Amino acid sequence: MNKVILLNKRPVGKPTLNDFKFIEEENPSIKDGEILLKTTYVSVDPYLRGRMSDAKSYVPPFQLNEPIQSGLIAEVSESKNPDYKVGDFVSGGLDWKEYQASTGIGLTKITDTTVRLSAYLGILGMTGLTAYLGLTEIGSPKKGETLVVSGAAGAVGSIVGQIGKLLGCRVIGLAGTDEKTAVLKSKFGFDEAINYKTTLDMKKAIQDAAPDGVDIYFDNVGGEISDAVLANINKFGRVAVCGAISLYNETEVQMGPRVQPILIKNSVLMQGFIVSNYAAKFPQAVQQLNNWLKEGKLTYSETLIEGFDQIPQAFINLFEGKNEGKMIVKI
Amino acid sequence: MNKVILLNKRPVGKPTLNDFKFIEEENPSIKDGEILLKTTYVSVDPYLRGRMSDAKSYVPPFQLNEPIQSGLIAEVSESKNPDYKVGDFVSGGLDWKEYQASTGIGLTKITDTTVRLSAYLGILGMTGLTAYLGLTEIGSPKKGETLVVSGAAGAVGSIVGQIGKLLGCRVIGLAGTDEKTAVLKSKFGFDEAINYKTTLDMKKAIQDAAPDGVDIYFDNVGGEISDAVLANINKFGRVAVCGAISLYNETEVQMGPRVQPILIKNSVLMQGFIVSNYAAKFPQAVQQLNNWLKEGKLTYSETLIEGFDQIPQAFINLFEGKNEGKMIVKI
Repeated sequence: MNKVILLNKRPVGKPTLNDFKFIEEENPSIKDGEILLKTTYVSVDPYLRGRMSDAKSYVPPFQLNEPIQSGLIAEVSESKNPDYKVGDFVSGGLDWKEYQASTGIGLTKITDTTVRLSAYLGILGMTGLTAYLGLTEIGSPKKGETLVVSGAAGAVGSIVGQIGKLLGCRVIGLAGTDEKTAVLKSKFGFDEAINYKTTLDMKKAIQDAAPDGVDIYFDNVGGEISDAVLANINKFGRVAVCGAISLYNETEVQMGPRVQPILIKNSVLMQGFIVSNYAAKFPQAVQQLNNWLKEGKLTYSETLIEGFDQIPQAFINLFEGKNEGKMIVKI
Repeated sequence: MNKVILLNKRPVGKPTLNDFKFIEEENPSIKDGEILLKTTYVSVDPYLRGRMSDAKSYVPPFQLNEPIQSGLIAEVSESKNPDYKVGDFVSGGLDWKEYQASTGIGLTKITDTTVRLSAYLGILGMTGLTAYLGLTEIGSPKKGETLVVSGAAGAVGSIVGQIGKLLGCRVIGLAGTDEKTAVLKSKFGFDEAINYKTTLDMKKAIQDAAPDGVDIYFDNVGGEISDAVLANINKFGRVAVCGAISLYNETEVQMGPRVQPILIKNSVLMQGFIVSNYAAKFPQAVQQLNNWLKEGKLTYSETLIEGFDQIPQAFINLFEGKNEGKMIVKI
């Protein structure tokens, strides 16, 4: 029997295991032109929280009692499609199932096997693309500028910081534990790192770490942390709003200081970033990321959890900051 | 004796007459290379409120017991500068004085006298430039899109709406009296106009007026009106944050719904606009505005108040919505 994870109910606030339902179905069979895929790695990401609500958003919501989907790496275990042979690996947006049939449409065959397979869910997948394109397309970093990254120890944030350094910026990371801030400096080369949970006056701490002010803010979290960064933004500053993990589980609209006066005073640009809007730039971006990776200029962290049954818990853990870097479930 | 208006103290909240001080000084005399200017029109603008505070901003604050400055039209009443002759008119940022000496540096000589002189403080001055460049540079209007303008009956807003129409947009104006909303439709050609003071559910009213959603929001006011517009913003919407008159007099930071989730969901761009950042585009923009004006495609309103002594009161009136269009004091 084939294990499948469905959306049981729409989370209210923080997701719980009750929001998911495990079922077993007949093992899928394939028709001519199809391939049978065996899931090997599952990406769990904060943005999935949005798809679990039925609010209008940039991607359609998951349906109740239907499988949840995310980025997967899968192995071709049977093929009736001449483009694929057994043993090939693919990446793509697929169902949370142990096995599933596919025509191959929308999937990417993994041809370069000199990098870890799971990297295609992370630094060479949506995570790396979000970091690279969010930073370059909205942040427009220039040499000598100061970049602040929130959620800096997360999958996207840790890559953003490294790319910022490669492009000549002074980089300051914000994270929620001393272990994370230590790793930001020792492993990822951030110039400064601030633990927002133990720092009483974040506005002052950012001012101290960024004495010339903040030119670019790559925002993964939203909320009060972002208020403190915006209070230090420079004239012509750019804010790439890539995530708001601090707000995803809120059941009411969150209030905060109005940003309009800051935007006017400093001619600041603030823009929401969705990686899928930049699909035309993916090939060039993956190439750049792969080059840096092979030159040893980029490193990445993964938090690997094992077992199909652990997927919902791995997802829930994201909102407790339990991951360092990309959260991946190995099947 | 020469009348001068100084900043007496920094306003707390809404400005009052006590914040200004009238003095008389010796009539100025001029040296070689200088001209003596007699003030004929004075522009009073909401942004001056910011310069009366000593908070860091994009222009340096006014100093206590020093003259206030704004956009003026003045007549050359005496000249020791070969570039100017008596009877010439100039525009520029000058002191609130009846007479003042100048080298002419930073002033613009008015050569085209086929339009009203005061237009150089309005539609052909910073007001028109703010409307045109804010809308085109940040709003990037495309034919068939929906544009919402707040503070629509104000000097900038009424021009923004007309330019929006000229560029093929459906235009919705927000203003604070029924007289103003009527004028928006009858005189300035807005498609729809909403009185935000008498409308209980602004979010719904904007939704009704903009059934296809809002593509561009030209924001002059900030605050709750802007919340209602942002709740209707479309994917890839653009928000030109040009003013926040509803917030200028607040003594505490104003709270509102956090915008980050909206920006992410809809890939929205929100940018603060300061006209002086676009100085390189002024000549071309003035040319365009002048062409439209002469072709009869643009109209404008002025609220004219007479008398040098009335300048502070005219300024205070701005925050009570007493002006229709550009507020100008004729000396």
